[in-house]
Amino acid sequence: MAQKPSIPKGTRDFNPEQVTKRNYIFNTIQSQFEKFGFQPIETPSFENSETLMGKYGDEGDRLIFKILNSGDFLSKFNQSIIQVIKDSLYNLLGYLNVEGLDWKIYKSKFLEFIPDHIRTKKIIQLAEEKVDYVKLAEDLWNLIELELLETEEKLNKFLEGGEGRLSDFTIRIFGSFYFNFGTSYLGSYISEKALRYDLTVPFARYVVQNQNDIEFPFKRYQMQPVWRADRPQKGRFREFYQCDADVVGSTSLWQEVELVQLYDAVFSALGLKGTTIKINNRKILSGIAEVIGASDKLIDFTVALDKLDKIGEEKVKQEMLEKGISQSGIDKLQPLFTLSGDFGSQITQLKAILSTSEDGKKGIEELEFIDKAITEIGLETAQLKLDVTLARGLNYYTGAIFEVSAPDGVNMGSIGGGGRYDDLTGIFGMPNMSGVGISFGLDRIYLVLEELNLFPKTVAKSLNVLFINFGDKEALYSLKAIKSLRKNNINAELYPDSAKMKKQMQHANKRQIPFVVLVGEKEMQDQQYTLKNMISGDQEAVSLNELITKLT
Amino acid sequence: MAQKPSIPKGTRDFNPEQVTKRNYIFNTIQSQFEKFGFQPIETPSFENSETLMGKYGDEGDRLIFKILNSGDFLSKFNQSIIQVIKDSLYNLLGYLNVEGLDWKIYKSKFLEFIPDHIRTKKIIQLAEEKVDYVKLAEDLWNLIELELLETEEKLNKFLEGGEGRLSDFTIRIFGSFYFNFGTSYLGSYISEKALRYDLTVPFARYVVQNQNDIEFPFKRYQMQPVWRADRPQKGRFREFYQCDADVVGSTSLWQEVELVQLYDAVFSALGLKGTTIKINNRKILSGIAEVIGASDKLIDFTVALDKLDKIGEEKVKQEMLEKGISQSGIDKLQPLFTLSGDFGSQITQLKAILSTSEDGKKGIEELEFIDKAITEIGLETAQLKLDVTLARGLNYYTGAIFEVSAPDGVNMGSIGGGGRYDDLTGIFGMPNMSGVGISFGLDRIYLVLEELNLFPKTVAKSLNVLFINFGDKEALYSLKAIKSLRKNNINAELYPDSAKMKKQMQHANKRQIPFVVLVGEKEMQDQQYTLKNMISGDQEAVSLNELITKLT
Repeated sequence: MAQKPSIPKGTRDFNPEQVTKRNYIFNTIQSQFEKFGFQPIETPSFENSETLMGKYGDEGDRLIFKILNSGDFLSKFNQSIIQVIKDSLYNLLGYLNVEGLDWKIYKSKFLEFIPDHIRTKKIIQLAEEKVDYVKLAEDLWNLIELELLETEEKLNKFLEGGEGRLSDFTIRIFGSFYFNFGTSYLGSYISEKALRYDLTVPFARYVVQNQNDIEFPFKRYQMQPVWRADRPQKGRFREFYQCDADVVGSTSLWQEVELVQLYDAVFSALGLKGTTIKINNRKILSGIAEVIGASDKLIDFTVALDKLDKIGEEKVKQEMLEKGISQSGIDKLQPLFTLSGDFGSQITQLKAILSTSEDGKKGIEELEFIDKAITEIGLETAQLKLDVTLARGLNYYTGAIFEVSAPDGVNMGSIGGGGRYDDLTGIFGMPNMSGVGISFGLDRIYLVLEELNLFPKTVAKSLNVLFINFGDKEALYSLKAIKSLRKNNINAELYPDSAKMKKQMQHANKRQIPFVVLVGEKEMQDQQYTLKNMISGDQEAVSLNELITKLT
Repeated sequence: MAQKPSIPKGTRDFNPEQVTKRNYIFNTIQSQFEKFGFQPIETPSFENSETLMGKYGDEGDRLIFKILNSGDFLSKFNQSIIQVIKDSLYNLLGYLNVEGLDWKIYKSKFLEFIPDHIRTKKIIQLAEEKVDYVKLAEDLWNLIELELLETEEKLNKFLEGGEGRLSDFTIRIFGSFYFNFGTSYLGSYISEKALRYDLTVPFARYVVQNQNDIEFPFKRYQMQPVWRADRPQKGRFREFYQCDADVVGSTSLWQEVELVQLYDAVFSALGLKGTTIKINNRKILSGIAEVIGASDKLIDFTVALDKLDKIGEEKVKQEMLEKGISQSGIDKLQPLFTLSGDFGSQITQLKAILSTSEDGKKGIEELEFIDKAITEIGLETAQLKLDVTLARGLNYYTGAIFEVSAPDGVNMGSIGGGGRYDDLTGIFGMPNMSGVGISFGLDRIYLVLEELNLFPKTVAKSLNVLFINFGDKEALYSLKAIKSLRKNNINAELYPDSAKMKKQMQHANKRQIPFVVLVGEKEMQDQQYTLKNMISGDQEAVSLNELITKLT
């Protein structure tokens, strides 16, 4: 390979400084997760395709990375398809020989020529669960029509073909099959596993699969990479970490209260002051839609409302009109656009708007509960703010909706989000398990900490001291001291070769190692070590014990 | 989905206890890596296929998990192939029309009918680097011969075919192409990325790609999962972690000395006493092969020797004979089978055997250097042992070879291994970079610690204290205390619902939470908390400060 190697687009290498800074964030989040009583689980990087497919909508399905089956993944599939085509043609020929050439009739009963063993699934051995056999039969028949029966000339060619016409035509239909339907059939045959797309669906799968071993309510955290075949762009990657904390098996609003505190605790521990935890409730949104007579247009309504920040009041109203929401309904919304004051006074205004909606009133009640508790307990550095336009993941959440924005002045999307979903595990056949959870956006948090210069200086430090290598005798003497230093939790190493002193010192500088130790004849004689401070340039001869003290 | 969900074979879910224990091992290894001056890097989970393929031998290539390209991955490929076939047939027909029917001639010049644009790469737009165009031309032509030119009858059919014969035959050849060559061509077209198979090749790629930013010698560690489509069995998984420490850019034997100490330090820190670090040297093995006149049979020789422990001396000799190693050569090996005594005396015996081999003498010199240094510096709990039968990864290593076995009495394969490879980055066009590294087998270390009951008790602890929930007022009072506890590094939580007391106490028991706090009217009035020890059953009313003290 002559050219310089590269990595796939949307992926990243992390160098030592980046890994160390990322680990600082991971460790801080993890430590708070554990203080709040969350327990770690891990799930496999890839899941069975049927676990993931269909859980994220069409767009999500498209973005899931599929893993190719190993081995000769085509031969079984090919042999099955060839066999089906050949048998179908054989049946067709027999029919034509008996019934004559009035071929237009057969169109209406084409399924008959597809042998029974397709429908009884005897032939198709691979990936049995994944093929719609009737559709396969229809698709194949359509090809047979196209290739053989479309005109009388084609049909005659088929009937008059000599020996071997069955195999000739079989291989032709087979080619046509690949050309016309290859992608759609092959996809499910040649891939049965896929990389996880998020941590929520694998968590739901985990809960259902291990339900007998889990003590509910179950508070779990999970920090693992996920993969999406999204178009890479600034801040959007094809491999990235999610850090999730969820509680499953409790409908208590105290969980929402805890999660608000958890956000506050993590961002405070990271030194990131002034974050805003925005909160809303799905029931508020459906209440408003109900009040303005647009319950059937809940999605359109919230999608438009969600844009208030970006496009302004007039354009939001215009979009609602275009989506078929009535002018009188929109007029009723007016107070919403001018909601003002603190959490409590916004709640008061909302109560007036939503007085006729049971759903809406329930949503208000929930918000009030959370707000009152948080006000009593207090937050360290974050503030909790009601945002009735917040609608993220609407199809998913059924109660509280959360989103965290970075401190004012930092230009960054949300650095966290979450909410409550009343039926987390229903997709896997375990109904009525309410879940509520939040997620931390590691990459964005990293960028914010970098921008605000909030990474502690100590995060960057790696090696405390480098021993200069003057030769084998000195190296051995040094390694004995190094062993003691390490026992005392000091990161220490010996330069591997007895290279020129200048080169070794440059190495220490480039790696930003704060101290070097020089050991020559004299030091070995005196049982000492010359310690040099690489920043001040000061150096002094010390004993091993002094060395340990000075480097601790 | 009605049936209970599952995970792909060879993969695992990890529950909280398992994650915590695994993290204990990771953290211990990481801490020692850093004490020894290694720096962390991370690489993407998937690499471009050409980075990985061909680096692990045929068997390795087969075991690499390939990722399916997203989108309509077949249509471009299909269109290209169809076009090539059609153009080839068109050229062939023209030739036949001019030159007549003496078709046997054409066999000898078949490449002429494959249009130029295949060879000039104009048509095949996908995955340009991955197709051998001459091979593609030959394969297609063989199909054309088979389908059209094999017999005069077939050729006549082709020539006499009416309108549309080009498309008829094109689609037939296309079908034949898929049937005969589908797997081999499709593989590289529909997949351009693959999950990493180990951490060494991605590390080599990283070094070459980032060579200008790296300060050499570069000591890196990496702890990430790898994936292999191996047949799953006890202790062998399709997704597992590797923990590697490597130095690249130094040929100094002090690195080998450091790595032996690193093994010792990690296993000592894990409390795993009595491990054996086996060491050998590739040069010893090639020296022995040279001495017995079997240099050309080095692999056969070492594969047989490697089995000494398992099958015994006689069978090893028999296998060598079968592989063509002479009886006189095998006789010269005799002293090898009876090597005895400590490291030093084995070295003395080896010197006698290898006195005529330069390679062998160099290997002995290296082993002596490492042994002397280790003897001087001392190991904490491990022992270093020479094992001339050790040959792991022979094709790879060029100097030292390491393997660690668990303490006597534990039935487990190697729990670590490594060695020196003189040309780590040569596969990516950066020659002469010597590397030496070791790896820790996380899963096996886990099993050994479990078997010997070596996980510290504290590893299992997660939550320190659960507050029983008697209602909203009590919950709020409790959450204020919980906030203070967490600030004091105590993991604490409130039971989410005011469920029956018995249920809450059972929850605490099932989660093995050591303490619960009970808060009722009286406690709130007195500003106190009733702390109950779940093991002894004792309980007492305490202030918040006392609570913090007692739980710290």
